[in-house]
Amino acid sequence: MQKMTTPRDAIRVNETRFLEDFSRLTRDGATPEGGLNRPALSEAHLAARETFREMIQERGFSIHEDNAGNLSACHTPSEAKKPVLLLGSHLDSVANGGRFDGALGIAAAFEVLQVLRDHGADSDVPVEVIDFTDEEGTWVSLLGSRAMSGQLTRKDLTNPRGDPEAFRQALQRAGLSIDGLLSATRPAENLQSYLELHIEQGTRLERSRTDIGVVTGMVGIHMYLVTFLGQSNHAGTTPMNKRRDAALGAAEFCLMVRETVMDAYSDCVATVGRMDFSPGAFNIVANRVTVFMELRSENATRAAELEQALREASLNISVKFGLKVDFQHLESVTARKMASAIIEQFESSVDLLGLSSRRLPSLAGHDAQSMATLCPAGLIFVPSAGGFSHSFREYTPWEACVRGANVLLHTAMQLVKSSE
Amino acid sequence: MQKMTTPRDAIRVNETRFLEDFSRLTRDGATPEGGLNRPALSEAHLAARETFREMIQERGFSIHEDNAGNLSACHTPSEAKKPVLLLGSHLDSVANGGRFDGALGIAAAFEVLQVLRDHGADSDVPVEVIDFTDEEGTWVSLLGSRAMSGQLTRKDLTNPRGDPEAFRQALQRAGLSIDGLLSATRPAENLQSYLELHIEQGTRLERSRTDIGVVTGMVGIHMYLVTFLGQSNHAGTTPMNKRRDAALGAAEFCLMVRETVMDAYSDCVATVGRMDFSPGAFNIVANRVTVFMELRSENATRAAELEQALREASLNISVKFGLKVDFQHLESVTARKMASAIIEQFESSVDLLGLSSRRLPSLAGHDAQSMATLCPAGLIFVPSAGGFSHSFREYTPWEACVRGANVLLHTAMQLVKSSE
Repeated sequence: MQKMTTPRDAIRVNETRFLEDFSRLTRDGATPEGGLNRPALSEAHLAARETFREMIQERGFSIHEDNAGNLSACHTPSEAKKPVLLLGSHLDSVANGGRFDGALGIAAAFEVLQVLRDHGADSDVPVEVIDFTDEEGTWVSLLGSRAMSGQLTRKDLTNPRGDPEAFRQALQRAGLSIDGLLSATRPAENLQSYLELHIEQGTRLERSRTDIGVVTGMVGIHMYLVTFLGQSNHAGTTPMNKRRDAALGAAEFCLMVRETVMDAYSDCVATVGRMDFSPGAFNIVANRVTVFMELRSENATRAAELEQALREASLNISVKFGLKVDFQHLESVTARKMASAIIEQFESSVDLLGLSSRRLPSLAGHDAQSMATLCPAGLIFVPSAGGFSHSFREYTPWEACVRGANVLLHTAMQLVKSSE
Repeated sequence: MQKMTTPRDAIRVNETRFLEDFSRLTRDGATPEGGLNRPALSEAHLAARETFREMIQERGFSIHEDNAGNLSACHTPSEAKKPVLLLGSHLDSVANGGRFDGALGIAAAFEVLQVLRDHGADSDVPVEVIDFTDEEGTWVSLLGSRAMSGQLTRKDLTNPRGDPEAFRQALQRAGLSIDGLLSATRPAENLQSYLELHIEQGTRLERSRTDIGVVTGMVGIHMYLVTFLGQSNHAGTTPMNKRRDAALGAAEFCLMVRETVMDAYSDCVATVGRMDFSPGAFNIVANRVTVFMELRSENATRAAELEQALREASLNISVKFGLKVDFQHLESVTARKMASAIIEQFESSVDLLGLSSRRLPSLAGHDAQSMATLCPAGLIFVPSAGGFSHSFREYTPWEACVRGANVLLHTAMQLVKSSE
């Protein structure tokens, strides 16, 4: 078995099976442009879960499903009592997202599970591949992994991002409930480590021609609803200088968010992804426009400073246009560090396989950050061509996916072995 | 009967009955704040029509309903063959609108109809009070009066403002159809004149302490969908300077619309009443934002110049942010003149009643502009307190409403008499 430590002879994932499984896991909710439309708990998302369930059964793994809807394929060596090595990602997508975000991580982990079963008969560490519910936060950001790690409050669930009634119906459709979600915690002593493979969703790897990104930690994400309040009035008979037009406040704030970040917060990003106009008609000056804004930073202090700067900007803008403003913090996802031991183990696997890697922070949220509160957690990135993400243009060359899966495999092998 | 020409003894409307009828006509769809929420063909709107129908029957008038859903109360002196004097307005409102816009015109016309029947036994001119469908353009601007005057195309009806399927269902709910709407024209020779009373929806009368506005004509209204197209991308991992964020184009355009009008088109108004974001999530850079914009001007040349200026602005903005733009003209309502003879008759009635009046253009669209293509048409305004309109704050003191109704009554009496 010594030969396994040289790149040429090292165990590898089964490329064909991996590709077939990935294709199968990206069929439900596929869009004509080549993307995926699988918002959490939608019919397409539940169909994808059903497909994964069939695959688990076909390959002879046991199924585990918790009260958060998280669906697992389990390989449990006989009489294994040791903590579980968990590998995971998610099958849901944003509305009209891409094929690689999440589904690639599930396919890679599932492939690793199969290789470990076939080649790891001497280990007594259970291995589990988990598909987390609503990673993208269609309803509640990182819903499944936060449920598992006990980071959900009832308020998170009664104030989802969409319509609460629609969320309740979606939960019902999936056979879930708010009480169930709050009870879906898993004891830390049950888990040895958590590993995840994901696409980078940026261009740092591609531009530096690096095979693997080893993630050091995730940025914090802070979400706000910034509502400008004016007065609804007739769009014909109200003179321009007599208007208290909420649209103007929202528009200027949207531009100011970008300007503030680019001028003084280049270590952060901020986005206005939506505005809701009320009453929302051609012929009525809007009395209320709600701006959906989020900001991200590795550094909590900087995030707080940026929030303060934007609060002040929104106030100044509201005064300028004769409006009022309500700057409401909706939700935050805390910045989180990955485990050093796993970072180093990923890098050993990269070396073993003769690949290149670099350490980098993740600018996106991932389930690994929830899991990091339960057990040592690690995350690797494979390159995203052109950096496209949350779009049908999302793409990673298959050989790059295979490299990532092999790093995941060798890291999992070491974690299974070191636990013996 | 000579005494009738002095203010003190002139016939007046029955104030109490008028107020009771107005209250009854503003009950369906009333909002807690004191406004009305009766978008055309909604349940509340259809309920208001049902109420009007009951009132017509109770007062012993005959009912006429055409294929556009326009509902009329008819008083036909025996054997009358002369063209009809039509008085009208509308019972629909914008979403969360006010109580006076439209409903006051119906109540005033209905009161005038009753006084004419009770005091005008010597006339053989039929008089009809009509409630026009969808004046506000929830679906199609001035739908009922344009149907009657043959100004609707099939394209207008298959491209309504809302969802075409929802429009089809709304028509069905009201017992209407697209083919029916296209057949609802009325021959010009059937009509003698059209008169309407409406609230001003501005502050010109209030500020000049004038009782009655005699409308000279209506501004043209031009509606556009201006869509900025960028690229959807991940809101965390896409650097600010790599984004093609459609929100930025839409926001800057919204501000530019106001700036352009205030700088160089002070004779026009323009409004951004809504923006639709796609995909419309916190964590995705928007790839498409559609701006709902309209502009109004008395002068078609100026309107065309302003449109051109805004087209150029939208192009410059799209280049600045790396976007594309689609500047689509959706619909226009042509500027229209009121009949001089009716303007003069309104002014005679104002003099007779010892009131004050001024001539002014209407900055809002009204059914009178459709009717002006069929027969001599006239429109008067009563003052709007504070100029509030399309809002629950819309208000006109009752004594001002009564003054307007009396001017409408005396003008109708003259038109009935002059036709003898």
